[in-house]
Amino acid sequence: MLISEIGELALIERLRRLIESEQGKDGDLVVSLGDDAAVFTSKSNLLSVMTTDSLIEDVHFSLSTTTPADLGYKTIAVNLSDIAAMAGIPRYALVSLGLNPKTEIRVIEDFYRGMLKAAAICGLKIIGGDTTSAPVLSINVTIWGQVEPRLLRRRSEAKAGQLIMVTGYLGASSAGLALLQNPSLKGKVKEAAALIKVHQLPIPRLNEARIASQCGAGAMEDISDGLATEILHICHESKVGVRINLSQLPVARGVAAVADLTKKDVNDFVLYGGEDYELIFTANKIDASRIKTEIETVTGTPVALIGEIRSVSERIALIDIEGKTKELVHHGYEHFA
Amino acid sequence: MLISEIGELALIERLRRLIESEQGKDGDLVVSLGDDAAVFTSKSNLLSVMTTDSLIEDVHFSLSTTTPADLGYKTIAVNLSDIAAMAGIPRYALVSLGLNPKTEIRVIEDFYRGMLKAAAICGLKIIGGDTTSAPVLSINVTIWGQVEPRLLRRRSEAKAGQLIMVTGYLGASSAGLALLQNPSLKGKVKEAAALIKVHQLPIPRLNEARIASQCGAGAMEDISDGLATEILHICHESKVGVRINLSQLPVARGVAAVADLTKKDVNDFVLYGGEDYELIFTANKIDASRIKTEIETVTGTPVALIGEIRSVSERIALIDIEGKTKELVHHGYEHFA
Repeated sequence: MLISEIGELALIERLRRLIESEQGKDGDLVVSLGDDAAVFTSKSNLLSVMTTDSLIEDVHFSLSTTTPADLGYKTIAVNLSDIAAMAGIPRYALVSLGLNPKTEIRVIEDFYRGMLKAAAICGLKIIGGDTTSAPVLSINVTIWGQVEPRLLRRRSEAKAGQLIMVTGYLGASSAGLALLQNPSLKGKVKEAAALIKVHQLPIPRLNEARIASQCGAGAMEDISDGLATEILHICHESKVGVRINLSQLPVARGVAAVADLTKKDVNDFVLYGGEDYELIFTANKIDASRIKTEIETVTGTPVALIGEIRSVSERIALIDIEGKTKELVHHGYEHFA
Repeated sequence: MLISEIGELALIERLRRLIESEQGKDGDLVVSLGDDAAVFTSKSNLLSVMTTDSLIEDVHFSLSTTTPADLGYKTIAVNLSDIAAMAGIPRYALVSLGLNPKTEIRVIEDFYRGMLKAAAICGLKIIGGDTTSAPVLSINVTIWGQVEPRLLRRRSEAKAGQLIMVTGYLGASSAGLALLQNPSLKGKVKEAAALIKVHQLPIPRLNEARIASQCGAGAMEDISDGLATEILHICHESKVGVRINLSQLPVARGVAAVADLTKKDVNDFVLYGGEDYELIFTANKIDASRIKTEIETVTGTPVALIGEIRSVSERIALIDIEGKTKELVHHGYEHFA
C-alpha cells in the first residue's frame, strides 16, 4: 500500500500508534505527538544539549544498499553520536520526513522500527515531528538531551601536553561502504559482514563519552567526517597543534584487505574515511590510563592512545608515518564538490 | 559565486560570521555554532517546548514566487507560530539546509538574513544546524522554547460551553498565493499587495497567545492547515463538538474579490485555505470579552468570536451558513494527494 493511497492523516495515525506501542511512559513528558509542539520537563541543574542532522536519499544513503530499518537505526544513531560527543544524555527526538507519495507504507513503518530500535539503546523518546511530500526521501532528526555542567566536553578544551585518544577501531565504516558499492569484493574479505555492519549500524559511544568525561577528558568529538578532519577541528577550536603516530592508529580488521582490493591506501579509510562514529578525546597524561582502563572495563570498547597535543606552530598537525614526519591535511568529505 | 566553488567549510564559515554579526550576546548560551551540538541553560521553573517543520522546494515554496529573504523569514515564522500555539517563549533554533551545489552563495546568505529578521522579532537565536547537498532546496528548522506550566495551552482543553475565537483575518494567505500563481489577476484586486504580504511574511502571534493564555484561554492552536482542519483537531483532541457561525468569521479584505476572479467560493479560502498562522482558542464566556479587549489593546490584533464549543454528538462540527446548518468536514491540505 502506498502513502498516496492512505493519505497524510492515516499515515500519521499509524506512525503514532507504532511509536506509542514501542515506547514506554515518560514522567517528564507533558505533551507528545498530536499537538503543535512537544512539551517536557527538564532537570534544572543540567544544561540542555541539542543537535540536528539531515540525511538525503542518494546523497547520504541509497535504498539499494540499505534496508529501511537499518537506515532508521543509523539516522538516530548518528544524532546520538553528536550528543555523546558533548558527554550528554539524550532524551527526546523530533523526526521530520520528506516522503515520495509513491513510497510503500511498509517502508516507512520499517524505517520507524529501526529508529525506535536505536532510541531504545538509551531510552530516547520520539515525541514529535513532521511529514511532508518530497522528491526523494529526506530525513531530519533533532535530539535534545541534558548534561551536567562539569561533564560537558567541547572541541575547544585541548591543551598542549595532553594525550589524544580514540575509542574502537577506525576505517571500518568506509571500508564497509566500499564493499556495499562493489558487491563482487565481499566474498574476498573475511571481515566483510563486520565492516558492513559498522557502516550500517554504528554504535553511538554514549557510555564511553560519559566515562571519559567523568575521568577528566579535555576536548572531545565524535568521528563523523574522518579522523584527520576531526583532529584539525580540535586543533582549530583549541588553538593547539598535534602530533599523531600513524602506527598507533587502531585500524579495523579487514580494512587493509579492502584497501588492497580497491587499490587504495589504508589511510584513505583510516584517516579520511568518515562515519566511524567513534570518539576522539584528549586527556592529561595523569588521567589517560585510568580513562582507558575504565572505558575498557565498563563498556568493553578498546581505547587507543594515538598522539599528543602540542603548542600551535606553523604546521598545525603532524603525523609520523614510517619514520617520516608529514603534515596532516584536511581531506574529509566535501558535500558540495 | 556558487556553493560548489567555495565548498562546505567556507560556506559554513561565511554563514557563521553572518549569524554572529546579526545576533547579540546571550548569557544562557554555553556552546553555539562550531561544535557537535549546541548547549544552553534552561530556566528551571519552566517547561521546554520544541517544534520542527520542513519546507521543500516545489512542494512548499517556489523560488519563482518568493525571494530567498522572504522564504527565510517565513521558515522561521511558521515555526514560531507553533511555539505561539503552546503560549511558549521561543529561544533557540537549529537550521538544517539541503542545498543544490549550483546555488549562488548570495541566495543562501539572503535566506539567512530573512531568517535572522524573523528571529529578531522575539529574540530567537540561531545556534546550530547542518548543511548538506540535496537535489532541491530542503529546509528544516527546529525551535526550542519555554513556557510556564500554568500558561501552557494544548489542543485538548476545550470544554462544552466555551466560546471559540480567532485572531486577525482569515483567507488572506491562500488568496495571496492564488494571486502569486495568477499574476495577471494582481492588478484587479485592490488589496493584492496586502494579501501577498500575509502569504509571504506571516506574523507569528506570540504576544497574542501569551495574553490569551494569561487571561484564561482553554484550548489553543495556530491556524496552519486551514480553519476547518484546526477546528476539527480541537474537537478530536478535546472530545467535544463545535458550532461555528460562518457570518462571524473575520474574512480578510480582498479575499472575496480573489474568489470571484478565480471562480472559487470565499469559503475555499477562509475555511480551507491554510497558512494564515492566526490563533484559534477557546475561553469560558466570563473570560472571553476580557481576552478580546486585552489582545486588541496590547497588540492591536483584532479578535473575533466565531462560535461555541458543544458536547460531542453524532455530527461533531456544525456550521451555520445563511440560516442553514451544515456539517463542517475536513478538507485541509493533503501532502500526499
